[in-house]
Amino acid sequence: MIAKVSIIMGSTSDLPIMENAAKILDEFEIPFEINALSAHRTPQQAIDFSKNAHDRGIRVIIAGAGGAAHLPGIVAALTPVPVIGVPIKSSNSLDGWDSILSILQMPSGIPVATVAIDGAKNAGILAAEILAVADEEILEKVKTFKAKLEDKIVKANNDLSKIKYKNKVN
Amino acid sequence: MIAKVSIIMGSTSDLPIMENAAKILDEFEIPFEINALSAHRTPQQAIDFSKNAHDRGIRVIIAGAGGAAHLPGIVAALTPVPVIGVPIKSSNSLDGWDSILSILQMPSGIPVATVAIDGAKNAGILAAEILAVADEEILEKVKTFKAKLEDKIVKANNDLSKIKYKNKVN
Amino acid sequence: MIAKVSIIMGSTSDLPIMENAAKILDEFEIPFEINALSAHRTPQQAIDFSKNAHDRGIRVIIAGAGGAAHLPGIVAALTPVPVIGVPIKSSNSLDGWDSILSILQMPSGIPVATVAIDGAKNAGILAAEILAVADEEILEKVKTFKAKLEDKIVKANNDLSKIKYKNKVN
Amino acid sequence: MIAKVSIIMGSTSDLPIMENAAKILDEFEIPFEINALSAHRTPQQAIDFSKNAHDRGIRVIIAGAGGAAHLPGIVAALTPVPVIGVPIKSSNSLDGWDSILSILQMPSGIPVATVAIDGAKNAGILAAEILAVADEEILEKVKTFKAKLEDKIVKANNDLSKIKYKNKVN
Amino acid sequence: MIAKVSIIMGSTSDLPIMENAAKILDEFEIPFEINALSAHRTPQQAIDFSKNAHDRGIRVIIAGAGGAAHLPGIVAALTPVPVIGVPIKSSNSLDGWDSILSILQMPSGIPVATVAIDGAKNAGILAAEILAVADEEILEKVKTFKAKLEDKIVKANNDLSKIKYKNKVN
Amino acid sequence: MIAKVSIIMGSTSDLPIMENAAKILDEFEIPFEINALSAHRTPQQAIDFSKNAHDRGIRVIIAGAGGAAHLPGIVAALTPVPVIGVPIKSSNSLDGWDSILSILQMPSGIPVATVAIDGAKNAGILAAEILAVADEEILEKVKTFKAKLEDKIVKANNDLSKIKYKNKVN
Amino acid sequence: MIAKVSIIMGSTSDLPIMENAAKILDEFEIPFEINALSAHRTPQQAIDFSKNAHDRGIRVIIAGAGGAAHLPGIVAALTPVPVIGVPIKSSNSLDGWDSILSILQMPSGIPVATVAIDGAKNAGILAAEILAVADEEILEKVKTFKAKLEDKIVKANNDLSKIKYKNKVN
Amino acid sequence: MIAKVSIIMGSTSDLPIMENAAKILDEFEIPFEINALSAHRTPQQAIDFSKNAHDRGIRVIIAGAGGAAHLPGIVAALTPVPVIGVPIKSSNSLDGWDSILSILQMPSGIPVATVAIDGAKNAGILAAEILAVADEEILEKVKTFKAKLEDKIVKANNDLSKIKYKNKVN
Repeated sequence: MIAKVSIIMGSTSDLPIMENAAKILDEFEIPFEINALSAHRTPQQAIDFSKNAHDRGIRVIIAGAGGAAHLPGIVAALTPVPVIGVPIKSSNSLDGWDSILSILQMPSGIPVATVAIDGAKNAGILAAEILAVADEEILEKVKTFKAKLEDKIVKANNDLSKIKYKNKVN
Repeated sequence: MIAKVSIIMGSTSDLPIMENAAKILDEFEIPFEINALSAHRTPQQAIDFSKNAHDRGIRVIIAGAGGAAHLPGIVAALTPVPVIGVPIKSSNSLDGWDSILSILQMPSGIPVATVAIDGAKNAGILAAEILAVADEEILEKVKTFKAKLEDKIVKANNDLSKIKYKNKVN
Repeated sequence: MIAKVSIIMGSTSDLPIMENAAKILDEFEIPFEINALSAHRTPQQAIDFSKNAHDRGIRVIIAGAGGAAHLPGIVAALTPVPVIGVPIKSSNSLDGWDSILSILQMPSGIPVATVAIDGAKNAGILAAEILAVADEEILEKVKTFKAKLEDKIVKANNDLSKIKYKNKVN
Repeated sequence: MIAKVSIIMGSTSDLPIMENAAKILDEFEIPFEINALSAHRTPQQAIDFSKNAHDRGIRVIIAGAGGAAHLPGIVAALTPVPVIGVPIKSSNSLDGWDSILSILQMPSGIPVATVAIDGAKNAGILAAEILAVADEEILEKVKTFKAKLEDKIVKANNDLSKIKYKNKVN
Repeated sequence: MIAKVSIIMGSTSDLPIMENAAKILDEFEIPFEINALSAHRTPQQAIDFSKNAHDRGIRVIIAGAGGAAHLPGIVAALTPVPVIGVPIKSSNSLDGWDSILSILQMPSGIPVATVAIDGAKNAGILAAEILAVADEEILEKVKTFKAKLEDKIVKANNDLSKIKYKNKVN
Repeated sequence: MIAKVSIIMGSTSDLPIMENAAKILDEFEIPFEINALSAHRTPQQAIDFSKNAHDRGIRVIIAGAGGAAHLPGIVAALTPVPVIGVPIKSSNSLDGWDSILSILQMPSGIPVATVAIDGAKNAGILAAEILAVADEEILEKVKTFKAKLEDKIVKANNDLSKIKYKNKVN
Repeated sequence: MIAKVSIIMGSTSDLPIMENAAKILDEFEIPFEINALSAHRTPQQAIDFSKNAHDRGIRVIIAGAGGAAHLPGIVAALTPVPVIGVPIKSSNSLDGWDSILSILQMPSGIPVATVAIDGAKNAGILAAEILAVADEEILEKVKTFKAKLEDKIVKANNDLSKIKYKNKVN
Repeated sequence: MIAKVSIIMGSTSDLPIMENAAKILDEFEIPFEINALSAHRTPQQAIDFSKNAHDRGIRVIIAGAGGAAHLPGIVAALTPVPVIGVPIKSSNSLDGWDSILSILQMPSGIPVATVAIDGAKNAGILAAEILAVADEEILEKVKTFKAKLEDKIVKANNDLSKIKYKNKVN
């Protein structure tokens, strides 16, 4: 089994958020890897990782980071593989604004596909959508997933119908 | 020629920004289409567009929007095709914060790949990276593009070397 | 009994906030309905709901949403019925700024009557005020409600008069 | 002719924004009045205005204000008539954030229907929607207006179809 | 005993903050009163209060308010007595930004002396400073208070001198 | 003539804003002085100024500052005289947020009476209100000034009455 | 032992944050002192401290402060010794934005080396880096410290390798 | 002449800001170099630069960057030399907030000495202060520079003394 998606983060403290990407990839049956990597602590490895990712078979990179979040941008600069950035609201961050802006506001020429604060699940789904460009099986799974989105609303309506108010019309 | 990327926007006033996506796709020789579409003004068309995009051959959607920017999210909900959102700093927006948050902070299940404010060029590059997952030719172009990123620095160093200060060491 | 107000939300997790709208409508004896609806998960239903609301007798719509809150805007675009938007400070939101801006900053042509963060009670009162344009009975109730606003101050003064400080003059 | 909508503002410097409400009401053929009124400079008149508005036939009030914008809230507290607040980005305001928060964040019991920054046109449309609750003619005009919203998209598509790029598919 | 300072607030929920103003006035032995008053709920009383405050002997008004905080500004408009505004970070406020901006950003002609978020103690001290303009006894107390400010630093240094580190020099 | 109000600022670049305080004091016929002083550049003079201000007859200090605005707070710590802080939106400031927070958020024990961004005119009026605590003549002028506030509204109404719209009721 | 670094703060409530600077200096075996000092409460001592610091052997000053944080700037103005400012997110601060802006946005001529919110550990490391300019021993320790930064990533990778998912590739 | 300070930036568009650092270093007669370098475009050179800087004689690095400003942090991670970060308010930045947070909010272990937005002059002065730790000559120049800070205030007072108002006391 060769990993198609690489999940990277700079600290295991980001794992409780980032494992939501892993879970959704598991659900989509997409082989992935998880590694710790840091733009600051292991810059050479970050460069090597970025340069070799495509050759190793990686087709999407999901990078989570908090505070002055440099990892997604550094990696994105050095690989043709699309990089999805997950801003993380860590304890010392300024309510997440620092990680959002450090990931989103990349200079011209080097995009990072940014998702919502702590949005690792959406990063996993986006990775599946990207792989689905070249993979009919994943495409079908994404289609099924999207079709099921409305289930939550059906269930919610079911719950709401049970609530009683004097003037509520059912 | 069948379009692989669809650039959509809600207003021609967004064109001066969004044409930067078109230009980069032209540079990458990726066939694309440009259409006006609105989550609010033509919701049925937006739904139909989203549902049919993949069958028409579209593999990436780039959606630009300003203010309470709903278009990228609405489209993303209804297609398996990855959607790239471009927040636009329009004249009545709150310095772009409204469009950033309306595009970025999508609910769980429905990702939008958000790029920097007015970052349409990066949206085009990201689209190329996504297509490169299944297209060797585009992959080579992306690799070449990324390799050329350092040209700007080489030129900048050339310019900076000409600046004279009494205590500047060359 | 035909509902005059329709309360909609995208998730039952918004119910603890949104039920404050229901309670005040109950107090005003205005018949209402509560439904789950989503701009992203059930867009076709959202469109159908919006297009049919007036014909079904709905005269005001109250739509609550958090994060990139698109529901109020999508509905407002498709109905002549006034739509009141309630921004909700959900757990993953950026302190509520995302839902406020996504609801408030609607483009020209498509107003959403936005109330304060988590302001579902005020949404219910505003709905009553709107219905009172055509309903003498509700008008009287709104007048009575507004007249009673000062009761809270009377009671507060009563409480404050009991506080003792050496230099406090009663 | 008796005015059904009252447009109020605290300064003629707000007129270039607020006249967009007047224009749309003119388009909808809804009789309106325009007056200067101030929560700070003419509080007694503001109170009297609020208390008498309904008896004079006013059914919607549109109040524009910038900075620490108190007028919409003060009026809303004293009338059963729905009040639409228009935050104005004046020269000394903090990019409009002060007027948005001063109007939007009203306490429980006293709603103000807030629209986007400088959103006077939307305030006028919202006023029409509210009046349409009791007026078939205005209802038809609102319906026609909403139906025409898509014209802008049709025209934009027409314009966009003329743009030429080497790889653009028409 | 005639009150020289009037502490006003719109809700007893503000009392835990506002009592810090009362305590410091007690410490300075300045006679004061505490009343509930609301720009929205009891506007006529607010006007009457403002117009009569000086004649009743009030020389400084301290007004606390949260959210869209209109009370300090409304009172300030109608009295020659200086008004000190205390922004309060209430549960539904946007981290206090709404109350700060609603109090601070008053229009030209109507100042409110704004203190820090939840800064009722400082409001009390400022009131004393203002009264000290005309009262030698209070002036002496303010001087003594300010002279004692350094006590906290003396005590802190005492505490810090006891902390042991291997490389700490004492 | 002995100055009762002292206007201080750290730079003549602040003068175009701060002269609005001077003009209103001139209008109120209150003797004042204007000096440059800096918490950073002339700290010893700032300390001496603060300690001697009351003895020299100064009864109110108006301190303007931009960016990391430390002057109002430093002075306030060392004088029993009330200090009014004017945050200034200078060219390098972050839209004025830095000067507002540096002046407003003073620690417990050391109040600064903060006015709106660039609000020097209001600082002058507040100074007059404070002096009016001990000066019947100034009190009368403040009363007259406040009474005239409504003139602006009368004039605005006059202007607005001349505007013509088809559906405008006069 | 003569202190080379001086850690200053305005309140012992800042100690839980600031002791992280002390710990890292202990680790680097750099002699330091800790003192309470206040720009507001003990301005004369702050001036004397600043003017004498270099002569006493101090080569770096670390100043922590919250809210309207004036201490780092006041000290920086009066000493040739580099001053590192640590913004502190205290209970009454506006999520730390006030202390960041009050320390960071110093006027031209008077730099403060600002670190992240609550970043006292980084302040200690920066102090070591500055001393290393003139001290080979400290230089070696800084080099060793930086070299060890990657240990955290090695350990994290070790941890991550143990996590099991069906589709995770190890 | 060997450079002691290295000024780096990612784009010549940052030069109008960054040359203020060069000018002040020229004034202090400190030899420096200016180079373009990019965390994204030339990461390998950035790593090499960082690792070799100290050996080449560089004792302070000044790094300017706008938007998602990663350069100062990347360099700081790999050198024992203190790094001063200059956030730059570029045309596409979010009023400078993105560059401030991307530079300031560095993770524990890797400090960047951040100065005010566009604060390159202060970066140069801070560099001089750091070098002064080991260089008596620079120390004297810094002392002289700081002593001259008050000249601006003397001149400002001279200017202010010439302004005439009826009630201004000279």
